[in-house]
Amino acid sequence: MAKDDSRLSPPTVLRLSEYLLILEQYIKENKEIISSRELADAYGNNANQVRQDIFHLENSGRLGQGYSTWELAEEIRRTLGLSDIRKVGIVGIGNLGKALATHVPFSDYGMSLAAAFDTAPDIIGKKINNLHVQDFSELADTIKSKDIKIGAICVPAVVAQSVCDTLVENGITGILNYSRIRLKAPKHISIQYQQVICSFMQLSYKVSHD
Amino acid sequence: MAKDDSRLSPPTVLRLSEYLLILEQYIKENKEIISSRELADAYGNNANQVRQDIFHLENSGRLGQGYSTWELAEEIRRTLGLSDIRKVGIVGIGNLGKALATHVPFSDYGMSLAAAFDTAPDIIGKKINNLHVQDFSELADTIKSKDIKIGAICVPAVVAQSVCDTLVENGITGILNYSRIRLKAPKHISIQYQQVICSFMQLSYKVSHD
Repeated sequence: MAKDDSRLSPPTVLRLSEYLLILEQYIKENKEIISSRELADAYGNNANQVRQDIFHLENSGRLGQGYSTWELAEEIRRTLGLSDIRKVGIVGIGNLGKALATHVPFSDYGMSLAAAFDTAPDIIGKKINNLHVQDFSELADTIKSKDIKIGAICVPAVVAQSVCDTLVENGITGILNYSRIRLKAPKHISIQYQQVICSFMQLSYKVSHD
Repeated sequence: MAKDDSRLSPPTVLRLSEYLLILEQYIKENKEIISSRELADAYGNNANQVRQDIFHLENSGRLGQGYSTWELAEEIRRTLGLSDIRKVGIVGIGNLGKALATHVPFSDYGMSLAAAFDTAPDIIGKKINNLHVQDFSELADTIKSKDIKIGAICVPAVVAQSVCDTLVENGITGILNYSRIRLKAPKHISIQYQQVICSFMQLSYKVSHD
């Protein structure tokens, strides 16, 4: 839980999630303590920002000159709610959907990949990460019966809005959108955009200004 | 060019790149004018933030009650430097590398995919998006001869740092890192992290606090 239960801003949540990955790397390397300066260097910001972000946590694991990597990681997990299991469904098992299903370590972060859907006959029925890809026509029933709350949209732009509508109608509350279009959805639905080309644009800008 | 040539902050650059995709959607739908409110609604922030971001541009295409979608899009492209061609190389042609090579519209945003590398014999030589996947051993020569400036790392975490080192030694100045580890690189190298699991964590947090 965050201090005073206030809601963290999206950039703070993003930074905390990235600090978590850094802390896990430290833990793997058996480093027990990290300073705000080291964390800032690894992340690419400054120690003040790191301290401000950590200040949002209830218990920072502060130890003299630094933080306990293990305690800080645990507290970030608790703050971000990564201990409750949330079920994820992926719609569209092309290269990108396959990459998500295969490589994203959902179970390490309180999520579980519960279903994968496609419309292509040669993909439906294939096994991917212990799941059989289901026909898109089974989406409504599956989402309800498995209580899936998060959907990742990895379909072409032309069908993304209709997939979004179907997900919303069937009780999904969070959507990760990999398609290039902005989706229209009711206010209570959280949509996270993940537009790969925008990362390249950011990098292109950085490269030209360094 | 940005006003007074000042460097834009990474979040501003990211928002501008996402506004650009929204504007392009409007242009496709033949909508000639967009208000800051409409842009904010489509993006998911507020009109003040949109106006502040647009204020960084030299010429906003302001027209009475709104902005010319076409002029604003052009000005964002100019500001982000998307008119200079930058060459991109992808290292690691697994599902994710394949997804990037196949679906990212590089050429629409001043980039061109110039090379793809892998170490697996069954992938080397395959054709992907008009390129033949090359053996990783050809990376150094190819980067130099083709003057590739941006590298996307789509390899497993255990080899990501060594791929990064090779890219840097051969003149890459911008790296998009899809691996889960933080990379060590000289200060003049821009690294953009794209950790898919962090998007799911952000969404998971949003879903639990809405």
